[in-house]
Amino acid sequence: MSYVDAAVARAKERRQKHLDEFREVLAIPSISTLTEHAGDVRRMADRLVDELKRLGMTRVDLMPAARHPIIYAEWLGAPGKPTVLIYGHYDVQPVDPLAEWTSGPFAAEIRGDYIFARGASDMKGQIFAQLKAMECLFAGGPYPCNVKYLIEGEEEIGSPSLDSFIDSHLDLLKADFVLNCDAGIHAPEVPAIIYSLRGLAYFEIELRGSAKDMHSGLFGGSVRNPAQVLCELIAGMHDADGRVTLPGFYDKVRALPEEERKELAQLPYSDADWIAMATSKGLWGEKGYTTIERVGARPTLEVNGIWGGFTGEGSKTVLPAKAAAKISTRLVADQEPGDVHGQLRAYLEAHAPKEVEWTIRELTHGPGAIMDRHSTAMKAAVKAFDQVFGKAPIFKREGGSVPVVALLQQKLGLDSVMLGFALPDDGIHGPDERQYLPNFFRGIETYIHFLANIGG
Amino acid sequence: MSYVDAAVARAKERRQKHLDEFREVLAIPSISTLTEHAGDVRRMADRLVDELKRLGMTRVDLMPAARHPIIYAEWLGAPGKPTVLIYGHYDVQPVDPLAEWTSGPFAAEIRGDYIFARGASDMKGQIFAQLKAMECLFAGGPYPCNVKYLIEGEEEIGSPSLDSFIDSHLDLLKADFVLNCDAGIHAPEVPAIIYSLRGLAYFEIELRGSAKDMHSGLFGGSVRNPAQVLCELIAGMHDADGRVTLPGFYDKVRALPEEERKELAQLPYSDADWIAMATSKGLWGEKGYTTIERVGARPTLEVNGIWGGFTGEGSKTVLPAKAAAKISTRLVADQEPGDVHGQLRAYLEAHAPKEVEWTIRELTHGPGAIMDRHSTAMKAAVKAFDQVFGKAPIFKREGGSVPVVALLQQKLGLDSVMLGFALPDDGIHGPDERQYLPNFFRGIETYIHFLANIGG
Repeated sequence: MSYVDAAVARAKERRQKHLDEFREVLAIPSISTLTEHAGDVRRMADRLVDELKRLGMTRVDLMPAARHPIIYAEWLGAPGKPTVLIYGHYDVQPVDPLAEWTSGPFAAEIRGDYIFARGASDMKGQIFAQLKAMECLFAGGPYPCNVKYLIEGEEEIGSPSLDSFIDSHLDLLKADFVLNCDAGIHAPEVPAIIYSLRGLAYFEIELRGSAKDMHSGLFGGSVRNPAQVLCELIAGMHDADGRVTLPGFYDKVRALPEEERKELAQLPYSDADWIAMATSKGLWGEKGYTTIERVGARPTLEVNGIWGGFTGEGSKTVLPAKAAAKISTRLVADQEPGDVHGQLRAYLEAHAPKEVEWTIRELTHGPGAIMDRHSTAMKAAVKAFDQVFGKAPIFKREGGSVPVVALLQQKLGLDSVMLGFALPDDGIHGPDERQYLPNFFRGIETYIHFLANIGG
Repeated sequence: MSYVDAAVARAKERRQKHLDEFREVLAIPSISTLTEHAGDVRRMADRLVDELKRLGMTRVDLMPAARHPIIYAEWLGAPGKPTVLIYGHYDVQPVDPLAEWTSGPFAAEIRGDYIFARGASDMKGQIFAQLKAMECLFAGGPYPCNVKYLIEGEEEIGSPSLDSFIDSHLDLLKADFVLNCDAGIHAPEVPAIIYSLRGLAYFEIELRGSAKDMHSGLFGGSVRNPAQVLCELIAGMHDADGRVTLPGFYDKVRALPEEERKELAQLPYSDADWIAMATSKGLWGEKGYTTIERVGARPTLEVNGIWGGFTGEGSKTVLPAKAAAKISTRLVADQEPGDVHGQLRAYLEAHAPKEVEWTIRELTHGPGAIMDRHSTAMKAAVKAFDQVFGKAPIFKREGGSVPVVALLQQKLGLDSVMLGFALPDDGIHGPDERQYLPNFFRGIETYIHFLANIGG
């Protein structure tokens, strides 16, 4: 049996062990945005450090970062072979609304073919499958190529440390390409590789009408209500065609070539599937574009949260002093995330009534990216999918943002291969997040083949 | 010294005692809308029952109601004299936002001429001043007229029990007129009597876009965002002239006679004062009307609260599953509060996109009222103000709602005299609610004179 076949056989034998360990990792509530979970985030980092040490890495470091450390590891025992920089993150999103979870978000309950937990799909399932692939390879001898790891704990809060970390470790992170495991496929039996990611610019806007909450009967209708003004401002951020009205928002948007539109139209997509995945009653979006184009190739603006006034039980006749919203935009090539702040400011300057004070704060931003679909690394991934799933992957544009892909492209000149096994309906960032277990196991095998293909 | 002069002298002597007792009742957090404060609400009721017993009432009952009991009391020892039904409430609004209070909302801290506490002005200060007036009268002999008390503990949750309570106690509540202490004056040295109150209809609207929160990068811009739709719907509830767009909203509104507009224009009002009271940067409202007219004689619609999506610390890239708002209207004669529910429903049916599910729930409603400015009781109040403040009160229309006034007018044929000493800038329902103490003491004297004037 060849080295790679033995590793795959080992992966099949160890499924129960891998699943048990996966559940342990899912039980750690490594929520990076909430201060009270800082200890849990650290516990998750320590667990990965232990794994990496067991995998024979010759260097494993916890490097300081703004809030949660970055894990760096390396094994460089294959001179002459390519070096792959493996990216992942070990933090997860908050769990609210908690009441909408069927089982506890860190109970890692298995129902049918799925395991349910915050982070199951985004992305403990992916990074852990990659580590288990390494384990199966390492048991059979040295790795087929050189390996470096960059695993951060701040991805879900916008990777505030990544930019400067890369800048100050350009030599350390040198590689031939990036394997980014924070990725997914199209459907359980439809492997896919994402070659385009959207950028993100995320803001908090606060409006203040009065110094304190007032009685709505005594003052309502005589002064501005900041909640009403906020609604008017948000309503005005889209026109009747679903286009974003921020001044200059579309100026740098790269038009979608007719040829690529035709390719996108060939993807195995149906409106009914999309509606089911979105758990919505229907579709909506920018006029003149298909759903695939809207989420993959067009910029969008969303209200992520809104609050103001009395939100408790019962009725309180209050005229709110202030109201606020979290608003984010997703950007496509060649939009600059840094431009959106100014566009939003210009919009508010033009439309906010003078009786209301407003502030705007950027919470996070990151650029988008487009990758070469014909690189050596991309071909190794295509082949690995074929070896495990029995078919070649489709190529997709992704609506989400993985800022590290653009950062590594800009700073180190490295293209990323987005190779992961999440599914679009895994419910990431929402309640009942899940990972499809058959593909967790096939994921381990695909990562084995991928590294073997790279090593030649 | 006459009976009434002796009572007034007693009030002046006992100021410190009255203030100490006032602080005791302000320390009781009788928040009617919050279940966890039910015991405190009951404690406040018990305290008033004790007071009324000490005042020689021949009957003092705690009568069951939906959530908090109604206090009924009577003293009918003046045959041939008029009977006054004294109305008040002993519950208060919630205290949030707690962080915006300078001192604890139940600490009853005195700073300068003001005492700060939730309920200080609305309306423990008023009902307690009335009880202290009774105390000073009772110490000198029998009351000058017959007295009944109706003090509820559910006013701040929309008086859900009052309607049926009045219906089932029509004989018990018989009187010649109502003294409603839930009232205020225009400015510290400008006594005022309100002769018109607005009605209220208060709703909660919830929109649902998807079954659960979704990832805003993966699904944003491809399905409806209920927070955005809610903003669009709320924005559309006013037109560019500040008029409410609910279908039929103005159909029954009684036009303001030109003569009354001239009277209202004579009131001691200034834009600068109003802006200062509202702690706002400027005025806004329905075109074609003055501020006094907007809040007193025109119907309005306000957002009292709004919420949806991620409202915590940091950034979460979520497409909210749902969003909700509390929306209330203030109504003038002859609008029917019951009509607004249908108008809001019709508005949503016409404007909510089909991809979003919505529900609407009425939380509370109550009618408005207009009173005769030339009744005997009104004249007794005018005279009492003159005796204590040295000047006649102005007559005002009020933007707030006191549903009990309309109920007692409809069911018992009783006009109310709105006699209380709150000030428009007391901050009721908001943080740092306060009562101006010099007028708390003058209030006690005015209530003494008023009852003496009624008794002749």
